[in-house]
Amino acid sequence: MSDIEIAQANEANQMKPITEIAATMGLAADDLEQYGKSKAKISFEALNRLKDRPFGKLVLVTSINPTPAGEGKSTVTVGLGDALRQRGQNAIIALREPSLGPVMGMKGGATGGGYAQVVPMEDINLHFTGDMHALTSAVDTLAALIDNHLQQGNALNLDPRRILWKRALDINDRALRNTVIGLGGPLSGVPRETGFDITVASELMAVLCLAEDLADLKIRISRIVVGYTYDKQPVTVADLEVTGAITMLLRDAIKPNLVQTLEHTPAFIHGGPFANIAHGCNSVLATRTALQLGDIAITEAGFGADLGGEKFLDIKTPVLGKTPDSIVIVATARALKYNGGSALNELQTENLDALAKGFANLKRHIQNMQQYGVPVVVALNRFTSDTDAELQFLIEACAKLKVTAVTATVWADGGAGGLDLADAVLASLNEPSHFTPLMAADASAESKIATIVRKIYGGADVAYDAKALQSLKLIADNRWDHLPVCIAKTQYSLSDDAKALGAPTGFTVHVRDVIPKLGAGFLVVMTGNVLTMPGLPKHPAALDMDVDATGKISGLF
Amino acid sequence: MSDIEIAQANEANQMKPITEIAATMGLAADDLEQYGKSKAKISFEALNRLKDRPFGKLVLVTSINPTPAGEGKSTVTVGLGDALRQRGQNAIIALREPSLGPVMGMKGGATGGGYAQVVPMEDINLHFTGDMHALTSAVDTLAALIDNHLQQGNALNLDPRRILWKRALDINDRALRNTVIGLGGPLSGVPRETGFDITVASELMAVLCLAEDLADLKIRISRIVVGYTYDKQPVTVADLEVTGAITMLLRDAIKPNLVQTLEHTPAFIHGGPFANIAHGCNSVLATRTALQLGDIAITEAGFGADLGGEKFLDIKTPVLGKTPDSIVIVATARALKYNGGSALNELQTENLDALAKGFANLKRHIQNMQQYGVPVVVALNRFTSDTDAELQFLIEACAKLKVTAVTATVWADGGAGGLDLADAVLASLNEPSHFTPLMAADASAESKIATIVRKIYGGADVAYDAKALQSLKLIADNRWDHLPVCIAKTQYSLSDDAKALGAPTGFTVHVRDVIPKLGAGFLVVMTGNVLTMPGLPKHPAALDMDVDATGKISGLF
Repeated sequence: MSDIEIAQANEANQMKPITEIAATMGLAADDLEQYGKSKAKISFEALNRLKDRPFGKLVLVTSINPTPAGEGKSTVTVGLGDALRQRGQNAIIALREPSLGPVMGMKGGATGGGYAQVVPMEDINLHFTGDMHALTSAVDTLAALIDNHLQQGNALNLDPRRILWKRALDINDRALRNTVIGLGGPLSGVPRETGFDITVASELMAVLCLAEDLADLKIRISRIVVGYTYDKQPVTVADLEVTGAITMLLRDAIKPNLVQTLEHTPAFIHGGPFANIAHGCNSVLATRTALQLGDIAITEAGFGADLGGEKFLDIKTPVLGKTPDSIVIVATARALKYNGGSALNELQTENLDALAKGFANLKRHIQNMQQYGVPVVVALNRFTSDTDAELQFLIEACAKLKVTAVTATVWADGGAGGLDLADAVLASLNEPSHFTPLMAADASAESKIATIVRKIYGGADVAYDAKALQSLKLIADNRWDHLPVCIAKTQYSLSDDAKALGAPTGFTVHVRDVIPKLGAGFLVVMTGNVLTMPGLPKHPAALDMDVDATGKISGLF
Repeated sequence: MSDIEIAQANEANQMKPITEIAATMGLAADDLEQYGKSKAKISFEALNRLKDRPFGKLVLVTSINPTPAGEGKSTVTVGLGDALRQRGQNAIIALREPSLGPVMGMKGGATGGGYAQVVPMEDINLHFTGDMHALTSAVDTLAALIDNHLQQGNALNLDPRRILWKRALDINDRALRNTVIGLGGPLSGVPRETGFDITVASELMAVLCLAEDLADLKIRISRIVVGYTYDKQPVTVADLEVTGAITMLLRDAIKPNLVQTLEHTPAFIHGGPFANIAHGCNSVLATRTALQLGDIAITEAGFGADLGGEKFLDIKTPVLGKTPDSIVIVATARALKYNGGSALNELQTENLDALAKGFANLKRHIQNMQQYGVPVVVALNRFTSDTDAELQFLIEACAKLKVTAVTATVWADGGAGGLDLADAVLASLNEPSHFTPLMAADASAESKIATIVRKIYGGADVAYDAKALQSLKLIADNRWDHLPVCIAKTQYSLSDDAKALGAPTGFTVHVRDVIPKLGAGFLVVMTGNVLTMPGLPKHPAALDMDVDATGKISGLF
């Protein structure tokens, strides 16, 4: 059965009312704003009541660099939550929301798979509770207000050539990357060059995910720099006097969403920045709520530990006020063989040589996470074609790094397939966690970039394009260069070259531009060819989707 | 108190759970998909169960041409529903959903006003149940799939210069009217000229509002013409093989939304095409549901009787399978004085001369609606500055046309201020209604346009631009010219010149283009300077909006 078939079989028969799921965490029906019977937002009143609750333990799930072979990080995260529940733990999951762009494109949904899924999977993968749409609406309303400011006399002296704020859609649409707008004469705007990002790449998504509450959201929105004047002075949302309107559009989107896994484990799904082009972590509010209501909160960060993992540790934890007590790195024998040079169509076959070579990728990620002083566990997400010898090799290779590696079969078996992993994670939670930041908070942007390139990516050097140097000067002039850096980089390699698999060394990372995101409170560092608006493939997933006359959806995966 | 203050006072104290409102109509909690405690969608199961229920009586509320003086059509519609309930009638309201564009711009919300409002007004005026966002998402996903088709080899031989499908946002953004996309080289799309409409102007909005069920929605989507090949052959959504995906995105949006008035009258708010640039009526499904659950369904059509009214009668009723039993035309003394030449700042002063002159506008609309053979009632929405002499003049002038005119004070008094109107409407429902279409269904497009221009607008002639003639030839070649016509025209005048107030005659309507909308099943006739993407004013309403730390919204009106 496919993921959607498994999910639908469950949804029809076994999904519990969301009020029951909430009750297991001590939340009353009045604490919820229900969206249908199986989805709910947590009310401001409930969030306020929880404000001073102590935190449980925090488990961060991350992974090796993704490959076309598949790793299954969300699946393992869900399965681990279910397994911990089976072990009698009060475990709560906190994931990101899927983006419609990749759902319609190639990647598909982001609700886990097999018997380790969050449900209702169709709703979560499509419009869910409308958070992405509220963000798109806020991003594009702000853009319209900026262009209207130009149109109506430009009192702020905004330079149309230096507007940073781009429009956004939650769609993979390469044709919108570079556009000219405002054509058609004086009644139809000021012509200028601009473009669209995918919504998850927009600063407002990062702002929503880092905001501690509605008041903080408003402050963050007010300080977003939308562009510069002709004198190169920054112009903010506050200067445009639209902070209130933009915050208002996100009033409901900031509330964490609650759903359940197939095994009825509570799961918060909230916020969805991509980790290659944004900071890659679900919302601070959702993670906090999971930490306040659960004894163990399990959360994931996007893509590999070089992207989402690093950003979780360096960008999110200072805001969250909590560092992980354990880090789980998800890997598969298939993906490591691919990293070691096996072709996609050869991954079914045992190949210990390729596995040994590709292990370098996992090893680097293990050592990277160990630098932060947090206990690490490796989860080997087992595929049917994996051989015992391959898995045994990986377990032993991890042991040499003083790391427990355990196989998990949560796709096929749900929580029951993750009990060994749960036990290993529980053991790791008894080990001491001495979180040590990788860099000083007040280091310069260049110094932070160099630290990440050397200590995480394993590179030798950083090269800056002329545009990046100009931007860095502007950033220094404005005294923003103490901010954390959020590196936009390909997810496929530790380097900025998508084709350099395994654990490359000696490379130089090329920085094209550095963009201040004052609302999010970080600097986005654009490297290599990474794009903030994906494209659709030759055969988009959309071509295989359908809905019948009764509303039953098929082809979503 | 402002509208939002009145609404908020009620919301906090008196709003009933939506399950209770549904229960008054015989719907169980299981028939609802709740969005919070006070909003719900009606499930497919409930809609199916109702399918063979007989219809109650249908009251259509329309108005004179809108002016800056304000008419209050939604307010009167809500107040009339409340008044009919006070008279012991099982009355149900069916309105359109507000669009965020005008909410942020100048017009404000569309939930009525004063004590004749639907609530929760903030939710309804903002993201509501996500219908507009689902539509935007579907419109732009289809556009991305079209551009991706060009990018990935263009197997259908689509001519990039002849793509009809435009992107959409639910925002007033003049800078997006005319754009160039696909710039930036071969990896970023095929460069071409295109633009964005406001979502409510998109064909998908019309499709959603005219679809009888999910199966019909799918058929309508499949036949949408997105453009032409280099050989000028039409290319449809079915040709692109994405009918399933686009329908899937609208699976929930097609379900009618239920809310309540301040007096707990059930109100369906569903679908929101503008009547100047689209067909201007709420969804067939919502109106039908109101007709099936109520003894009297009260619905409105957008802008004046020349736009929404005509389109309701000529486009919607054939699909709905029901013609109105009574038509209410809303007018104000203020607006008629403005039509008669009074300046905006003089409307507070009694001016019987201007009123007599401006009455020509109301008279034309009364006579227009009478042509259809349906009883007409005039609702005079009373403002505090209106004098008794002015209202008496209007009542007498209407009586000469054999039409009952009654004053209503629903803004100030709620349903109690609409009891006379309710009585007049009840009386009109006892009169015979002999609906007569204005034109033969199989008449040519040109003939239909001429009929509307002469019999509704009062014009003398129609002039076609070269582009319109080319389009009409293509339409005739494809045998689409028997379809109904949906005229896009300024709402401010009976003519296509916004400045020609009153009841102009002898004018020529200028047709710029005729665009086939095969999904909606009509031809859009673009006249005068009407724009399908509005702009923001010098001081957009957004500048005055705010939300406090508890989530309370202000400045929305």
